[in-house]
Amino acid sequence: MRDERLKKLARVLVEYSVRAGEGEQVVVSGGAAAESLIKEVYARLLDVDAIPIPQVSLPGMQELFFGHAKEHHYEETPPVVRSMYEGADAFISIMSPQNTRALASVDPQKQQALGKRDKALRDMIVSRDRWALTLFPTEALAQESEMSLDDYEEFVFEAMALNEDDPVRYWREKAKEQQRLVERLEEADEVCITGLETDLTLSVKDRKFLNGDGSHNMPCGEIFTGPVEDSANGEVYFGIPVAVGGREVSGVRLRFEEGRVVGSSAEKGEEYLSTMLDADDGARYLGELGIGTNYGIPRATKNILFDEKLGGTVHLAVGRSYEKTGGKNESSVHWDLICDLREGGELYADGELLQKDGKFSGYDFG
Amino acid sequence: MRDERLKKLARVLVEYSVRAGEGEQVVVSGGAAAESLIKEVYARLLDVDAIPIPQVSLPGMQELFFGHAKEHHYEETPPVVRSMYEGADAFISIMSPQNTRALASVDPQKQQALGKRDKALRDMIVSRDRWALTLFPTEALAQESEMSLDDYEEFVFEAMALNEDDPVRYWREKAKEQQRLVERLEEADEVCITGLETDLTLSVKDRKFLNGDGSHNMPCGEIFTGPVEDSANGEVYFGIPVAVGGREVSGVRLRFEEGRVVGSSAEKGEEYLSTMLDADDGARYLGELGIGTNYGIPRATKNILFDEKLGGTVHLAVGRSYEKTGGKNESSVHWDLICDLREGGELYADGELLQKDGKFSGYDFG
Repeated sequence: MRDERLKKLARVLVEYSVRAGEGEQVVVSGGAAAESLIKEVYARLLDVDAIPIPQVSLPGMQELFFGHAKEHHYEETPPVVRSMYEGADAFISIMSPQNTRALASVDPQKQQALGKRDKALRDMIVSRDRWALTLFPTEALAQESEMSLDDYEEFVFEAMALNEDDPVRYWREKAKEQQRLVERLEEADEVCITGLETDLTLSVKDRKFLNGDGSHNMPCGEIFTGPVEDSANGEVYFGIPVAVGGREVSGVRLRFEEGRVVGSSAEKGEEYLSTMLDADDGARYLGELGIGTNYGIPRATKNILFDEKLGGTVHLAVGRSYEKTGGKNESSVHWDLICDLREGGELYADGELLQKDGKFSGYDFG
Repeated sequence: MRDERLKKLARVLVEYSVRAGEGEQVVVSGGAAAESLIKEVYARLLDVDAIPIPQVSLPGMQELFFGHAKEHHYEETPPVVRSMYEGADAFISIMSPQNTRALASVDPQKQQALGKRDKALRDMIVSRDRWALTLFPTEALAQESEMSLDDYEEFVFEAMALNEDDPVRYWREKAKEQQRLVERLEEADEVCITGLETDLTLSVKDRKFLNGDGSHNMPCGEIFTGPVEDSANGEVYFGIPVAVGGREVSGVRLRFEEGRVVGSSAEKGEEYLSTMLDADDGARYLGELGIGTNYGIPRATKNILFDEKLGGTVHLAVGRSYEKTGGKNESSVHWDLICDLREGGELYADGELLQKDGKFSGYDFG
C-alpha cells in the first residue's frame, strides 16, 4: 500500500508521539505485513536525524515459540533484547497481525508466562513515556472487523484523523476538550456506571486522569485513570467482544466486592477469562477506568486499540494500573474490557449525569 | 516453501555450523523473503535449548537508508545494535534478496562508508568464530542465475548437499579431503596460477590455509589463506562475473607489483571497481587466496557465496585478510573475484602442478 496517509501517520508517530530528536535511537517494531508503514517511519526517522532500529516480526513466530519453547525460555527476556530496549530512547510499535486467531490453541498459561517474563521490559518502556502504539490495516484485521481491506483502511485512517490536512493539530484540539473532562473528573470522588446488566460504583478520589492525546496510542481519544483499588462494587456487563490472545472473548460479566472480582462469567472464552483473573493477586483488581471520546470510530471491531476509544463506551482493565494515574495495582495482566453505554447507559460523577446513551452533555467530541 | 531440506539446513546451521548450546543467544538475521528458513532455524534453536534472536530485514530498507541517511548516520553503528551483537553468542545470517540490483544507483562511496562504519562489528563477529552465512533461494536470485525458482532451489540444495541423508557427515568427509590439500599447500612457499590472460605468482610462506568445512559458509567447499602481502606479481583475469553492491561487475583485470594492484580494468562496472580499490590503503592488496572444491556446483551464478566454492576456480580477495590465516592486511573492503581455471588453467605449488583445466590430480573432490 502506498498512501499519502501513511506518510502522515509516520509524521504523527515520529514528530508528535515520540518526538524523535537528533541521534536518538528509536525502536520500530512491527510485523512484516506492515512493511509500507515501517518503511515510512524508518525514512522519517532518518529525515529528522534520529536513528531507526527496525525490529520486524514474521507471521507464525509466536506460534513457533509456544510450540517449541522449554520452561527456561519463559524465565527471562533474552538479555540482548533487554539491553537493546534499555539502550533505546523511544519506541514505536505497529500491530499488523496476519491472523488474529493464530494463537487460538495456545495454552493461556503459556501466554501468561510469557507476559510475566517480559513485564519488567514493558514497565521500563512505559515508564520512559516515549512510546507509541499503532496499527497497520491487514486483511486479517479487516476480516476480524467484517470489512473489505479497502473499507477497513478507510475506517482506520478516519479513526486516526489522517484525512485531516493536519492530524497533529486535530489531536491537539481534541486533547483540549478532553482536558476539560479530565478536570471535571479529577474533582469527583465517585464514578457510577449504569446500563445493560450494569451497575458499578468506583472511587477515583485523589487519582489523576490522563489525557489520551495520541502521543501513546494512534488512534486515540480517551481519558483514563486508575480507580481506587478496593473501591469497585457492583456488576458490569461488557457487551463488546474482544479478540485477545488468539481467541474471541465476549459477553463477560464481572461482579466486584470491595474492588475484587468475586464473580465472573463469559458467553465465549470463559476459560481464558478465568486464567487471566487467576494469573496473580492483582489480576482480580481494576487497574484502569477509561472513557472513550473518539466519535470518528463508528463501531466496535474486536480490536482493543480502537474499541476502547469508541465514543459512548467506557472500559475497565483488570490488572496492572499506570503509575502516573496514582493507581497502585500490580499485575502481569492488563486486560481491557469494554462496556457499551450507547443504548441506555449512563455515566455519573458524584451523582451528576455526564453522559447518557453514549452522548456527553456539555462536552463536544464531534 | 515447505521443504524437508530446509529442516536439514536448519540442523546443519544450528548444530554443526554454530554449535548452539543451552541458553546461548543466537542472532538469526535474514530478509523477510527467507521466512520459511528463518522459522525452521528459530524452531531448531529452541529445540536445542538455545535462545533465537531473529533480526528480519525488509526489502527496500537499504535503499531507504542510502536515500535518507545524513552524514552522521555513517559515523557509528547504532549503539543498541552493537550491544545486541556484542552480547550474542553466535550468528546465523541468511541472504535472501528480493532484488539483486536494488542498489544499482547508490553511490559506491556511500556503500563504502557504511561498510567502514560497521567494520568493527563484522570483525568482532568473525573473531568470535561462531558465525554462519547461508542463502535462501528467492526469485531474484533465481533470475540473477537465469533459472526458474524450482530449478534454482534444486541447484542451491544440491550445492549444500541437502539431498544427502546426512549433510553433516557429507561436509565432514569433504573436509578430510580438503585437509590433505591444506597440508600440501602449507608446505609450499609459492603458488602460481596461469590461465586465460593470467600469470600470477604469490607467496604463501608460513601462512595457514583454512579448511572451509561448512561451519561458516553453507554451501562450502574451499580452502583459503591470506597470501604474503607484498608477494603478488603478475596479472590475472577474473572471467566470472559477480553481482555486488547492487550491480554487476565482470571481466576484471588486475596487475600486481610487489603485492599492490598497479593496474586495473573491468569490462563492466569499472567505476565500482575503482571505488573499491581506492577505499583505503589495504584495498589494493590481497587479503585472500581461495581454491574452490565444490564440484556439486555446476556453474557460476553471479553469487559469491556459491561461485567462490565452484570446483575448478580460484578466488582472490582484495582487502581485509582473515587473521587466522596469518594474513596481515587491514581494510574496510573484502571483495572476492573469481578466476576460472576450467579451460586451460593451471595451479602450481612450488612448481608442482596440482590442478589442470580445473581438475585436481591426487585429490578426490567428487
